[in-house]
Amino acid sequence: MAHRDRTIEALITALQRLPGIGPKTAERLAFHLLRIDSAEALQLARAIEEVRAAVKSCRHCFQLDAQDPCSVCADPARDRSMLLVVEDPREVARFEDVGYRGLYHVLQGRLSQLEGIRPEDLTTASLVTRVRDGGFAEVCLATNPDLEGEGTAAVLAEQLAPLGTKVTRLARGLPAGSSIAQVSASILADAIEGRRPLP
Amino acid sequence: MAHRDRTIEALITALQRLPGIGPKTAERLAFHLLRIDSAEALQLARAIEEVRAAVKSCRHCFQLDAQDPCSVCADPARDRSMLLVVEDPREVARFEDVGYRGLYHVLQGRLSQLEGIRPEDLTTASLVTRVRDGGFAEVCLATNPDLEGEGTAAVLAEQLAPLGTKVTRLARGLPAGSSIAQVSASILADAIEGRRPLP
Repeated sequence: MAHRDRTIEALITALQRLPGIGPKTAERLAFHLLRIDSAEALQLARAIEEVRAAVKSCRHCFQLDAQDPCSVCADPARDRSMLLVVEDPREVARFEDVGYRGLYHVLQGRLSQLEGIRPEDLTTASLVTRVRDGGFAEVCLATNPDLEGEGTAAVLAEQLAPLGTKVTRLARGLPAGSSIAQVSASILADAIEGRRPLP
Repeated sequence: MAHRDRTIEALITALQRLPGIGPKTAERLAFHLLRIDSAEALQLARAIEEVRAAVKSCRHCFQLDAQDPCSVCADPARDRSMLLVVEDPREVARFEDVGYRGLYHVLQGRLSQLEGIRPEDLTTASLVTRVRDGGFAEVCLATNPDLEGEGTAAVLAEQLAPLGTKVTRLARGLPAGSSIAQVSASILADAIEGRRPLP
């Protein structure tokens, strides 16, 4: 006799495939989905189905959206002279929240020797084509301020250099609200290196 | 303009309702479900739908199963003189794994003053009826060895006492493989209190 119903096992298996969800958490989530209102559980199932039916990659910037071109690329009010290059589609919402109003280019990852991720695994070729054809005044490489992010930015900067467009990088320095006594040496080194004259 | 597609937001909201899933994890999972093969994402949706369509509470023991009575209650090979009372349907698989072959009763929770969970919120009334009618030789209260689990066992023991059936509790003591130098004082106190004669 099976110790547990086949459909429960199938749900635990499916949940366990999610990143960061181990066997115990998958079991907990599965039994949660069994305990709650059926309507609420089915809402999650439907949300997955709807998102996969509706959302696609924008042909221009590779942002995920229900429309292609995406709502940013299709918006005539955006500043088309500015391109912000991000690693991940999630990061777009962060920049939108702080009022950025240029265009985006989503790399869909970052270069990593360790994980074997090469330029051809990302949308770098499209980026180069876009910058060549797009008439941007500035391309800001907004990859993360860590080893792989910096490495990715360096490779992209090299690929973009022949095109003559101004290429920038997000500022590194003290995080707002931090205390100089507490930040790491590399943060402080960035802050000194990037110091700016008072206006 | 919305910062993010409506269906993505809906999925993040649905994921955030799961226990232990905060906004950041929900976002990460949602974008994972967008990045992976559509077939794999839809497999999770379908697993949720199937489990909710297939699985119900057993009318006798309240275990979750595709059949009612459940596969344990319906199995003629089980020892019908023994009843093990557990808090949660997940715990049934644990006892099955270690070879328990009696019947179960799932309380669907434990008594908790803090969370306002009273006997009528659990399946205690059905338990009393079952023990009165069922001809069990023993009822083992396998609630957890913590404050609420012990409290629940004490209340159940009181309710079952008039029926005359032998009521037991799982042993408390040193966990197998532990070291006496490392275990907590309450574990050691349990181990001394529950010491047994050598055969």
